[in-house]
Amino acid sequence: MSPDDPHRRDADPARQIRAEAGARVYLYDTTLRDGAQTQGVDFGVADKIAIAEALDGLGIDYIEAGWPGANPTDDAVFETMPKLARSRIVSFGMTRRHGRSAANDPSLAAVVGARASAVCLVGKTWDFHVDVALGVARDENLAMIRDSVAHATRQGREVLFDAEHFFDGYAANPDYALGAIEAAHQAGARWIVLCDTNGGTLPDRVEAVVRAVAARIPGDHLGIHCHNDTENAVANSLAAVRAGARMVQGTINGLGERCGNANLVSLIPTLMLKMGMTTGIAPERLPRLAEVSRLLDRRLNRAPNRHAAYVGEAAFSHKAGLHASAVEKDPASYEHIRPELVGNRRHVVVSDQAGRANMAARLRDIGLEVDPQDKRLLRLLEDVKAKEYQGYAFDDVPASFELLARRAFDAVPRYFELDRFQIAVEHRHNAKGDLVTVSQATIKIDVAGEHLLIAAEGNGPVDALDAALRKALEPHYPALATMRLVDYKVRILTPQEGTKAVTRVMIESAGAMAGGEVRHWTTVGVSPNIMDASFNALEDGITWKLFHDGAKAA
Amino acid sequence: MSPDDPHRRDADPARQIRAEAGARVYLYDTTLRDGAQTQGVDFGVADKIAIAEALDGLGIDYIEAGWPGANPTDDAVFETMPKLARSRIVSFGMTRRHGRSAANDPSLAAVVGARASAVCLVGKTWDFHVDVALGVARDENLAMIRDSVAHATRQGREVLFDAEHFFDGYAANPDYALGAIEAAHQAGARWIVLCDTNGGTLPDRVEAVVRAVAARIPGDHLGIHCHNDTENAVANSLAAVRAGARMVQGTINGLGERCGNANLVSLIPTLMLKMGMTTGIAPERLPRLAEVSRLLDRRLNRAPNRHAAYVGEAAFSHKAGLHASAVEKDPASYEHIRPELVGNRRHVVVSDQAGRANMAARLRDIGLEVDPQDKRLLRLLEDVKAKEYQGYAFDDVPASFELLARRAFDAVPRYFELDRFQIAVEHRHNAKGDLVTVSQATIKIDVAGEHLLIAAEGNGPVDALDAALRKALEPHYPALATMRLVDYKVRILTPQEGTKAVTRVMIESAGAMAGGEVRHWTTVGVSPNIMDASFNALEDGITWKLFHDGAKAA
Repeated sequence: MSPDDPHRRDADPARQIRAEAGARVYLYDTTLRDGAQTQGVDFGVADKIAIAEALDGLGIDYIEAGWPGANPTDDAVFETMPKLARSRIVSFGMTRRHGRSAANDPSLAAVVGARASAVCLVGKTWDFHVDVALGVARDENLAMIRDSVAHATRQGREVLFDAEHFFDGYAANPDYALGAIEAAHQAGARWIVLCDTNGGTLPDRVEAVVRAVAARIPGDHLGIHCHNDTENAVANSLAAVRAGARMVQGTINGLGERCGNANLVSLIPTLMLKMGMTTGIAPERLPRLAEVSRLLDRRLNRAPNRHAAYVGEAAFSHKAGLHASAVEKDPASYEHIRPELVGNRRHVVVSDQAGRANMAARLRDIGLEVDPQDKRLLRLLEDVKAKEYQGYAFDDVPASFELLARRAFDAVPRYFELDRFQIAVEHRHNAKGDLVTVSQATIKIDVAGEHLLIAAEGNGPVDALDAALRKALEPHYPALATMRLVDYKVRILTPQEGTKAVTRVMIESAGAMAGGEVRHWTTVGVSPNIMDASFNALEDGITWKLFHDGAKAA
Repeated sequence: MSPDDPHRRDADPARQIRAEAGARVYLYDTTLRDGAQTQGVDFGVADKIAIAEALDGLGIDYIEAGWPGANPTDDAVFETMPKLARSRIVSFGMTRRHGRSAANDPSLAAVVGARASAVCLVGKTWDFHVDVALGVARDENLAMIRDSVAHATRQGREVLFDAEHFFDGYAANPDYALGAIEAAHQAGARWIVLCDTNGGTLPDRVEAVVRAVAARIPGDHLGIHCHNDTENAVANSLAAVRAGARMVQGTINGLGERCGNANLVSLIPTLMLKMGMTTGIAPERLPRLAEVSRLLDRRLNRAPNRHAAYVGEAAFSHKAGLHASAVEKDPASYEHIRPELVGNRRHVVVSDQAGRANMAARLRDIGLEVDPQDKRLLRLLEDVKAKEYQGYAFDDVPASFELLARRAFDAVPRYFELDRFQIAVEHRHNAKGDLVTVSQATIKIDVAGEHLLIAAEGNGPVDALDAALRKALEPHYPALATMRLVDYKVRILTPQEGTKAVTRVMIESAGAMAGGEVRHWTTVGVSPNIMDASFNALEDGITWKLFHDGAKAA
């Protein structure tokens, strides 16, 4: 059965009867602001910029990058954010304070003055919050909204108004809640974003309220911002779209405080593939979605959720037996969409052409053109499976995957050969009585026919090992002098198996290549011993650089 | 403001306008059958019985305990299941095979003959699946359903019919899909359960289809069974209830293959607290919900999802300063329900934005009642800020935070004092020529007035250090024997600063406390040297356990 077979289309017939099919929905990502509020999440400047670039590559319309003036990291993000191809950068902040004019509020000035093309201002719409949390007169709250939006509009910014607690506010005092958003709308806000801040509203209620609001403010000026406190953030966002809202706010992987924000990774394919909506994401870019989801997990040093909708490793997995053979006969029988549409893949026991074709496509990505009948392709496939079973995760470490693949086909040179290493860490009192820790590595290594015994110190054992390797190699390969370790992450895998647990080390390196271009690359090592795993990742990192510089084995 | 204040009720006004409020909804748990299909889940007999007892204690109406005849575990579960107070045990299986009579099908006989009060039989309703996956005539499929249901009914069992792929089937051929469920209904099935087996149907479509079905079969004979492939399983289940269905099937924590089943832990409080439905769970038993959720994670040896709706540790957490002070004034301002209704609690998070109110509330959580004017409170606040600047992240490491706080106020005993340690890792060829890696730690430590010099080996340097500490301490503190390291994570912080980078190590430990209860706790160490950071995290982990066991310094 072909992908265009009627059965597959029938798998979601709702698509054909939707009034809204074809409408343009704007996607607004707040991973870097609301997502950054999550307990334990601590983005650095480099993290925020890498995530913004990935969102831009996907085609997200708006990226809320932070709160200028709130902390030095966010200030640096707005100052150093590169020009993006598709996304608009948004600065976030509050409406002016009580007792200040909009033009004379330093916090508001920092938000409006940031290098961003749009400004999102949050304000109160729930009378109870105005009385209790804010403690200002209700009219003054309306003036704060009106003045702040008008001020930002006059500065030439596209303005969004985040209507905090809108659904609770509308329930308690609909006139006041509507008055607040109408004040923002009339003052020039391009978008009024209805927020279910406490996350307690259910989908049918969201739909009814958004319909009521859309009778006053056109839906193509309304956005929705949901939280997942009842596990309905995705459904609430879809309900708002059905009711006419045309902006959806959310985060990658549903990151966010408490139970998280609406998960854009789940919303995007549903909007595009099932509801037939248009977004800023061209359909041919949608397969980048899975990688954007994984990128965030890497930046947070988290294991990806295997069971995530659409992009999880298990989302299209099929157990052996009747089920898998039905899938072989026709994937539509057990799959609600084709996994490749979102950059995911089917996980069945594949020994066949499908697995080989997949692998051949991945090799093409790194510039290796391989005949699908080549026997080495099958061997590589089995090797990858075996290593993934051990705990390697090649999707995340393109440089290590590339070396494995190239070694299978055209022999990457052996630039050096380790005979042994020894690492010593001593934590003790020095002569002055201060506690000090000293790390030292000794390696026995063959380079260019020489047998070298080299020792070096470092800030820690891995740094010492890296230093010893460089001391041995740089005289023969001077290009390594530009290379440095920029990130080092460790995870224990299968900790439930006690002593069988293995350690996975991921190392990100950066350096100037022979052509002058600065690149970043990531390698992996897996072993029961953290030092072995670290050595393997370091070795791959050095080898990848030398190979791409076109170095010959000395 | 009291819990009965109108504002709190207004937070979910939808409750007051729902036609279905008060209706009885039956809860059906399939954690032990559909949930057991999840990759990596492998329940033993004791697990299944412990989980069933917890579900019974909560008040779940039906527990699908397994598939008799499918494997020895499930057979033993049905044989040894104790009599439950509230729940009915259900055996699951398929309709009779093609070519056999219902009375003469050994698989069906095992299912119907099991020690269970109800039988759930799954059958096909999608014409395409009948043709392609099953490969029988469409009329024969209807006969298989009719015969099997009638047979089980004649044996005196309450019968449920799981209509597999019902929503896809209804879209492709509504007459056939309706014919299949009507065959089951007429043959005596008490419940017809509409299954969204591939998980691709959206809430508005589920609602429309269930309404159409309810025009033929009364809603109090209809159930719903959803999967989470678009992150809408909870919303789809609620949509079906709105359309009249009166049985909801799901699993604890949304366990299940691919993206999981509908999560009963999220559905139950929404149905009871927000939609005003009656279930088999008495309101005073609802606070057991959080513990049922945690029990499943313990049985699966998984870390609980901190961000789970209603029951997650972070579900009622509050971070920012202003935010937390508003919560102190009135929890309804930032909470959609009272956390204690579902057995959870409020959690005020420490961060560098924290004020004294935050800190005092956090101390109250660990049982320290402190006057907000106490000068030590301010010192602790400054200490926390300074350490967070260094790279500690106390949000994630409650045990290390607790020790820091207790040390500030009431002196945690020094159970031991490290003088120095030395770690050696050797990667070399052994006598047989194989590459081996050996890790060894030597510590000089004072315990109970003795100066000990202790060496130990391990799988890696941290394991060796842990082993040496235990070797030194266990003779004096035997309770440490039950403690083990369950997770170890490393991150480099501020890697952009080159050699100033520090390493943060987080260690999760688990063990039986003096009272017998098994607990998990997380500690942190930060240092430029990974081994120092690891030692600090290990030391805090051991100290936390000894302190909570009430140990005296030996």
